[in-house]
Amino acid sequence: MSRVVKLAVIPGDGIGPEVIAEAEKVLDAATAGSSIRFEKTRYALGAARYLETGDTLTDDDLDAIKTHDAILLGAVGGLPGDPRLKNANIERGLLLKLRFELDHYVNLRPSKLYPGVPGPLAEPGDIDFVVVREGTEGPYVGNGGSIRTGTPHEVANETSVNTAFGVERVVRYAFDLAERRRKKLTLVHKTNVLVHAGGIWKRLVDEVALEHPDVAVDYLHVDAATIFLVTNPGRFDVIVTDNLFGDILTDLAGAVTGGIGLAASGNINPDGAFPSMFEPVHGSAPDIAGQQKADPTAAILSVSLLLDHLGLTEEAQRVTTAVETDIANRGTASRSTAQIGDAIAGRLPA
Amino acid sequence: MSRVVKLAVIPGDGIGPEVIAEAEKVLDAATAGSSIRFEKTRYALGAARYLETGDTLTDDDLDAIKTHDAILLGAVGGLPGDPRLKNANIERGLLLKLRFELDHYVNLRPSKLYPGVPGPLAEPGDIDFVVVREGTEGPYVGNGGSIRTGTPHEVANETSVNTAFGVERVVRYAFDLAERRRKKLTLVHKTNVLVHAGGIWKRLVDEVALEHPDVAVDYLHVDAATIFLVTNPGRFDVIVTDNLFGDILTDLAGAVTGGIGLAASGNINPDGAFPSMFEPVHGSAPDIAGQQKADPTAAILSVSLLLDHLGLTEEAQRVTTAVETDIANRGTASRSTAQIGDAIAGRLPA
Ligand SMILES: CC(C)[C@H](C(=O)O)[C@@H](O)C(=O)O
Ligand SMILES: CC(C)[C@H](C(=O)O)[C@@H](O)C(=O)O
Repeated sequence: MSRVVKLAVIPGDGIGPEVIAEAEKVLDAATAGSSIRFEKTRYALGAARYLETGDTLTDDDLDAIKTHDAILLGAVGGLPGDPRLKNANIERGLLLKLRFELDHYVNLRPSKLYPGVPGPLAEPGDIDFVVVREGTEGPYVGNGGSIRTGTPHEVANETSVNTAFGVERVVRYAFDLAERRRKKLTLVHKTNVLVHAGGIWKRLVDEVALEHPDVAVDYLHVDAATIFLVTNPGRFDVIVTDNLFGDILTDLAGAVTGGIGLAASGNINPDGAFPSMFEPVHGSAPDIAGQQKADPTAAILSVSLLLDHLGLTEEAQRVTTAVETDIANRGTASRSTAQIGDAIAGRLPA
Repeated sequence: MSRVVKLAVIPGDGIGPEVIAEAEKVLDAATAGSSIRFEKTRYALGAARYLETGDTLTDDDLDAIKTHDAILLGAVGGLPGDPRLKNANIERGLLLKLRFELDHYVNLRPSKLYPGVPGPLAEPGDIDFVVVREGTEGPYVGNGGSIRTGTPHEVANETSVNTAFGVERVVRYAFDLAERRRKKLTLVHKTNVLVHAGGIWKRLVDEVALEHPDVAVDYLHVDAATIFLVTNPGRFDVIVTDNLFGDILTDLAGAVTGGIGLAASGNINPDGAFPSMFEPVHGSAPDIAGQQKADPTAAILSVSLLLDHLGLTEEAQRVTTAVETDIANRGTASRSTAQIGDAIAGRLPA
């Protein structure tokens, strides 16, 4: 009996389609001959679609996407400064809208320094941690506004909203993950300044910690956390943090582990009420689009996260191993996007 | 005719008194024999004072402090987790209160990699930039609150407030600084997500830029900025950003330039309506307090910023040069706080 997985594929803009082509190649190779069949539906969403139709993400798009088991996304966003996109905000209207509407409350971002990868740190040590970034609350909710806009008397506000419901569920996920890893959890926030937003995070981490006496818990202010990410990243196992701090920490984490060309992520709805979405952390990089210059590894590692999420643990592991072997054997010659994809797909057992 | 400068000295908690002792030593040496005389008044503020009296910063304290020409502060804050400080929040009640009440709208934080300083980056390149961090607005305003606190239905909000008045004045300061430096200014924010807070910053930078056609202006999202801080910090000259992003970026900047033991800062009221305050970026580090283990260099470089602010440019330069020479000649032997202070003071021309 074969299992069919309905996969929505959103290649997006810029380098998105190129890296997704390689990710699909690897997905196909990893599941070839198995009883799993991926039934893919392609959605043309992003800046290109907006410029053509004026739509970012319609209700119909959303309804259609919801019928899938999972989503694979490349990257969305047009050329910065394109005047035609001035009022579009593809990020909020598409990417964040997907994360919010599909209740992706866990934004899972592993950071690992693979042997052979050159990074910016002189003595990186062993780096292997996961950031569990909250995905549906915090300063990302879009609860902002301004008065006297554009005048010398403008006041522009932006409100971070944090609920016990929203914080507790992601904190629970992080503790469960820590239990399956090295049993260390670090909360990152700025409790000394953001007293209320920080307070609810601290309280719920303390409460859930009582149910996990074997997990060592510590706390860092976000500013201090950035210091440790460059001086002692090996100290981290699972980091749990809010939407904005998670955004900042994971780009930095990507940089210290050799660049966001390798950073994968999953936007996960653990309840299974909505399809989870897997995407590289990097953006659409329109400046190098269509030139086969992008590294598809982050997209390919996102496929590994996708497989893992679907319970296809072995297939996921195979993809990760193929990537690790490819990285360890990377020479100094530069390779095209497709060459990297081919090399990784070629390392998968037939 | 001699000029008298009325200086408020707030040694604070933890390592504060130790590093301030060395900073004063250097201040005295740098101004010995000149026509400037510093009339110092010591204020016992911080966690220790709170534990003794229950006061953090009274109106009388504030009134007294306001009568000075400038303030030198060590560090404030007690042992994290001290139950007696649970409800104190020395950071908000003292440090941030001073910054807000004294309208320190420019939080000036230079980052420079001095020759001879070991840092975490493999190839740091030339690092020499200044972060102009807004000091009186943004997510730091304390406009937060929660309902159903402590229950499963808690909602905790925190509002970032940004005014055209507040943003424009710090942006103007940053452009003026860029004019006197390498004429490059980078705005860091998160305009794609924090549409309103980011929008007002973008608008005002664009507007003020028109008056500075010779300053090259660019923009980075905060997440991307952290990447560049570890992969190419040499690209920065002047960074202008909000209170929270500035907090994060300057700790990271301190780390990449060899540790926050060297990072100095000025909380400046450029209008001169209130005394400006100079302090190391580091905290009170109660774990190593009283052991002569702290590096007083950040406090000493803060004295240089203080002198510069008072128009004592030559004296400021002398302190910086003494620090640079000391750093360049640091051996591998560890030195006590006082030994470092003595060495730097000893390098000042008599
Ligand atoms: C594009 C942007 C809205 C997004 C975010 O801030 O979450 C990106 O930076 C990311 O980290 O996925
Ligand atoms: C202690 C804290 C309130 C402070 C801040 O966040 O501004 C500190 O981190 C700093 O950078 O001076």
